[in-house]
Amino acid sequence: MSPLEVIDLAEKLARFEERWSPRIVAELNGQQVKLAKLEGSFLWHSHMDEDELFLVLEGKLTIELRDGRVELGAGQMVVVPRGVEHRPVAEGEVHVLLFEPAGTVNTGGVRDKRTVDAPEWI
Amino acid sequence: MSPLEVIDLAEKLARFEERWSPRIVAELNGQQVKLAKLEGSFLWHSHMDEDELFLVLEGKLTIELRDGRVELGAGQMVVVPRGVEHRPVAEGEVHVLLFEPAGTVNTGGVRDKRTVDAPEWI
Repeated sequence: MSPLEVIDLAEKLARFEERWSPRIVAELNGQQVKLAKLEGSFLWHSHMDEDELFLVLEGKLTIELRDGRVELGAGQMVVVPRGVEHRPVAEGEVHVLLFEPAGTVNTGGVRDKRTVDAPEWI
Repeated sequence: MSPLEVIDLAEKLARFEERWSPRIVAELNGQQVKLAKLEGSFLWHSHMDEDELFLVLEGKLTIELRDGRVELGAGQMVVVPRGVEHRPVAEGEVHVLLFEPAGTVNTGGVRDKRTVDAPEWI
């Protein structure tokens, strides 16, 4: 048996289908690594106290910003600084890895039916 | 112009060839994302105050531990908790993404000719 868990991203992603509902796969130094499946448009929001990293694993993700947009493909990432309003838009199905402080809520300071207060560990 | 930097992992990795010398590509929440090229055996070390995440992007990486080992291929990651002695061993060339607190030194509490106190931003 391995003394530490080997976290296989593809195997973890195969465990869920729900869109816009990040799952936690690791925690370190008060930060969490999450995986999410995105499709369509999310809502405009910002995180008051958390910078958020998006790393695209599969698909094409646009992150709209009030002053422009960034477009990410597989193997590309961006850091959205705290306080910066953003809206992720996924063309088709997109798989992302997120790095952010433990406790970061997916919809930031906005409440929505897609708000996930306590993401599941997988 | 993009309002936020798109960080392309392959493009960043193409900027350096040096082994065991992590480059910083992003910083958020007091943490840094680094890229490194590994080849051969590193030295046994631990980080007193930092958990360290290794995500393999290319190649096969073994992380030896005092009580066993973990073997990682592309798309697999592991968190080495603070205080846990480890020795990365790369079969051939391996590309990894590291996520760890800003200021984490690659050789932890050990001084070595491969110690990098101030990694370069790329």
